[in-house]
Amino acid sequence: MKALLFNGKLEYREDVRPPRRRVGEVLIKVVLAGICRTDLEITRGYMGFRGIPGHEFVGLVEDDRYPELDGKRVVGEINCPCGKCETCEQGLGNHCPSRTVLGIAERNGAFAEYTMLPNNNLHEVPDSLTDEEAVFTEPLAAAIQITRQVPIRPDTEVVILGAGKLGLLAAQVIGRISRKTTLVAKHPSKLRLIDDMDINLKTSSEFQNEAKRDAQVVVECTGSSTGLKLAKEIVSPRGTIVLKSTYARNSALNFSDVVVNEVTLIGSRCGPFPSALQMLKRGEVSVRPLISVSFQLKDGLQAFQEALKKNYTKVLLYIS
Amino acid sequence: MKALLFNGKLEYREDVRPPRRRVGEVLIKVVLAGICRTDLEITRGYMGFRGIPGHEFVGLVEDDRYPELDGKRVVGEINCPCGKCETCEQGLGNHCPSRTVLGIAERNGAFAEYTMLPNNNLHEVPDSLTDEEAVFTEPLAAAIQITRQVPIRPDTEVVILGAGKLGLLAAQVIGRISRKTTLVAKHPSKLRLIDDMDINLKTSSEFQNEAKRDAQVVVECTGSSTGLKLAKEIVSPRGTIVLKSTYARNSALNFSDVVVNEVTLIGSRCGPFPSALQMLKRGEVSVRPLISVSFQLKDGLQAFQEALKKNYTKVLLYIS
Repeated sequence: MKALLFNGKLEYREDVRPPRRRVGEVLIKVVLAGICRTDLEITRGYMGFRGIPGHEFVGLVEDDRYPELDGKRVVGEINCPCGKCETCEQGLGNHCPSRTVLGIAERNGAFAEYTMLPNNNLHEVPDSLTDEEAVFTEPLAAAIQITRQVPIRPDTEVVILGAGKLGLLAAQVIGRISRKTTLVAKHPSKLRLIDDMDINLKTSSEFQNEAKRDAQVVVECTGSSTGLKLAKEIVSPRGTIVLKSTYARNSALNFSDVVVNEVTLIGSRCGPFPSALQMLKRGEVSVRPLISVSFQLKDGLQAFQEALKKNYTKVLLYIS
Repeated sequence: MKALLFNGKLEYREDVRPPRRRVGEVLIKVVLAGICRTDLEITRGYMGFRGIPGHEFVGLVEDDRYPELDGKRVVGEINCPCGKCETCEQGLGNHCPSRTVLGIAERNGAFAEYTMLPNNNLHEVPDSLTDEEAVFTEPLAAAIQITRQVPIRPDTEVVILGAGKLGLLAAQVIGRISRKTTLVAKHPSKLRLIDDMDINLKTSSEFQNEAKRDAQVVVECTGSSTGLKLAKEIVSPRGTIVLKSTYARNSALNFSDVVVNEVTLIGSRCGPFPSALQMLKRGEVSVRPLISVSFQLKDGLQAFQEALKKNYTKVLLYIS
């Protein structure tokens, strides 16, 4: 089958063996996939991954072993836990030490004609959603996860650093709860994508001129180590920094201010798919403006190049 | 008066001007003071402090403007908030942006014959406590603060990294709550100081051979950046790392694992003096074995040298 393959370098190939059927796993024909910052980090060595990347997708089930799913349009949760260990028994399957992760760890992903996931991972996409909306389910769920981990009230001062796709989704999710939500972007063009919403929008330079240490919650979505440094400078005493970026590089930071200001840092990863599908269905978030450009799978290498551009948000790959 | 003075380098001086009386502040004749790791960091440039260091002390009030306190033996909370700003009004005086901090920020400390603190900061020492016990009130309160910030139950797996004075106090406080408390020390001699308690004691090398990612709470008291690195490796998914060390240097760290494992890091600083005095009075913690050596104030420079020794815990200074 056709696929993008990463073996130290990313290649487009047409001779990749399709996934072999496995018990408990469902064969999915991928329709549309999104390139995420994690995918870019994988091509820089993050997680030491080798194989087919891609974990944001919409697809059609093509598997007659699962008649209740066969032919359905689905999105899929990316963590595949063993289901047997102590961590899984505690209900923390997403943290199972033996888990595989779609396109990220020990499991081929969605930048291919076919992919595979356990049937429990799949969620049917409501008919009213387009593929281009549904492909945002995974990152939107990750944005919603923030609100599950940190209490946010209507008057909570929240600053979101970074207006990549995750920052733009987080701003929309949090902006529905707190009327004191600020989104900070390096590039003003990003802010225009959501400028009709009730969110304070600032460029980095505007923000740094007036920044005080008064943000009760800072969401770090910049994907760079300077983001955490700035977050530490603007978070209020006893405030919370939510860490959303995964990247391959180290950050040189001093943590004395975290101790002195009794700040909480909390890592935040995957979130609830059902809530994300519901928000999309109700039109509570606007995702279409976040699509910068779309490519066919065969032009995947060019798509990765484009996804690196600073003023781009989401780059999509049409697979079939 | 006699004092230790830090102006880029630490000196013992006999010509230092005693504190001038100020409204709302109480003059205290210092009896005994402890050297803390923060004091050592101050001599390396931490906080850019200039003046008399020292923030752990026992003293006698010598101030007839405060008849209810005059002559009493006291310990003192180190943060002096402005009492007027928004942070203070929220009850977060310890985080007041205009606060001064005894011997740490904009306020001369306790390595001197006399020091001064607002009357609200002072706590009378119960008669049954010796000076050598009472001088541990401040660090013990800091250890107790951990249990105020992070829920610890009898079956919570807690690992304390670093058996300096703070680690040894934290182990005793937490070991009274959780029967799954482990203290990890670089130097086996440190562990012998509390080996009659019901706490698992491990040297770093023993611990690293068998360490798994299963500590629900890790308390980082090593005072070195390697401590946080190890903490990230042993904390369980969705676990908590409590940061207790303040130091002047940067740490180069990768935070992807914090994100992926959804770990919480929480900075923890000063704690409740009344609880600390109560624990000391009830004999619930053993502090005398933590005293390595004591000096007179005039030998303060030597005391600082000794406090740097790896196998030492608490070095005391007799002032008067």
